[in-house]
Amino acid sequence: MQQQYQSCIDACNACADACDMCSTACLQEDDVKMMARCIALDMDCAQICRLAAAFMARGSEFAGALCQLCAQICQACGDECAKHQMQHCQDCAAACRRCAEECRRMGSTAAA
Amino acid sequence: MQQQYQSCIDACNACADACDMCSTACLQEDDVKMMARCIALDMDCAQICRLAAAFMARGSEFAGALCQLCAQICQACGDECAKHQMQHCQDCAAACRRCAEECRRMGSTAAA
Amino acid sequence: MQQQYQSCIDACNACADACDMCSTACLQEDDVKMMARCIALDMDCAQICRLAAAFMARGSEFAGALCQLCAQICQACGDECAKHQMQHCQDCAAACRRCAEECRRMGSTAAA
Amino acid sequence: MQQQYQSCIDACNACADACDMCSTACLQEDDVKMMARCIALDMDCAQICRLAAAFMARGSEFAGALCQLCAQICQACGDECAKHQMQHCQDCAAACRRCAEECRRMGSTAAA
Repeated sequence: MQQQYQSCIDACNACADACDMCSTACLQEDDVKMMARCIALDMDCAQICRLAAAFMARGSEFAGALCQLCAQICQACGDECAKHQMQHCQDCAAACRRCAEECRRMGSTAAA
Repeated sequence: MQQQYQSCIDACNACADACDMCSTACLQEDDVKMMARCIALDMDCAQICRLAAAFMARGSEFAGALCQLCAQICQACGDECAKHQMQHCQDCAAACRRCAEECRRMGSTAAA
Repeated sequence: MQQQYQSCIDACNACADACDMCSTACLQEDDVKMMARCIALDMDCAQICRLAAAFMARGSEFAGALCQLCAQICQACGDECAKHQMQHCQDCAAACRRCAEECRRMGSTAAA
Repeated sequence: MQQQYQSCIDACNACADACDMCSTACLQEDDVKMMARCIALDMDCAQICRLAAAFMARGSEFAGALCQLCAQICQACGDECAKHQMQHCQDCAAACRRCAEECRRMGSTAAA
């Protein structure tokens, strides 16, 4: 049953990895202060994406609701990352936006 | 700033612990099959409660939204646990309901 | 820097997904009681694999040590799953063993 | 059975909360760059403490091994936090050291 979720699970795992990489890279930037909100959102987004993957893989009755929230956090994180020119931020923004799209679809399907 | 969240954080930690204890105790019951949905909801509830505690402790901008979802999952888990007479299920139901109430309050305050 | 970890991160994400799927499938078996240890180890293994992926993606100074422990848990979970004929257990056993191998390598490299 | 773990579970939850609060407070400091390692260790420590609490509450066969690793990470995080004068770092250092001690005891008992 959970196979229907596979592309969304993959997007969540990829987004979590990108966010975790981005937070560490941000901490090594010269102007860390400018990256503070990016780091905070990276933490939130990585954690909720890993949880969304777990809920989907388990076929949880709350997988759809969690994906809807995950989509919002991915969107916010992607928008913040997109403001910064560094490659890790641009990579993270792309992963976040792809994941937001997958989670939005999952959330609306599951709620139907 | 995060101190305003303390009673909700405490309720989330207590609920997560109760759910994790309940899932293990359910797995040791003679009729495990009857406990299947209880175990599944215990897993979901324990994980989202630990994440909600983390978001609140970090003062995340998504703490309120996560608490709203956490309240729904606590409610469902508490309702399921309440159906079973075993002490671990009754203890878990009580922890879930207290946490649902705290998270509902947190969710509505944060959204205001 | 974290790119060196990519194949181990991928194995951890795949193993976590397989364990989460397996725990749900086990809960739907006729003889759930026989699957109790499998379900318990699936929970442990899924959670530690997701954490190991996070630590590696962040390039944590404790990534190697966490991978060493993750390898042990994957090994135990894979050995337990391998005892059961169901496809979900066999798939999970394979994912666990691949992840155990990747984590063992990561753990020894990082400790060197 | 898991009640024997209660004081260690409580220490893990308190340490996770303190680390999550500390990471956010560090991100708001003027000299964030100086806090980079503290933030990174706070993330590791918060996550492993929440996982250790989960493993103990479930009575996992790997609870002792996870607590041993958790003790090391708490120690490292506490030592780093102790270098900084801010109240959030001093509070976090105290929570980390208490948790390291509880986890060390748990790890050695469980391994016996």
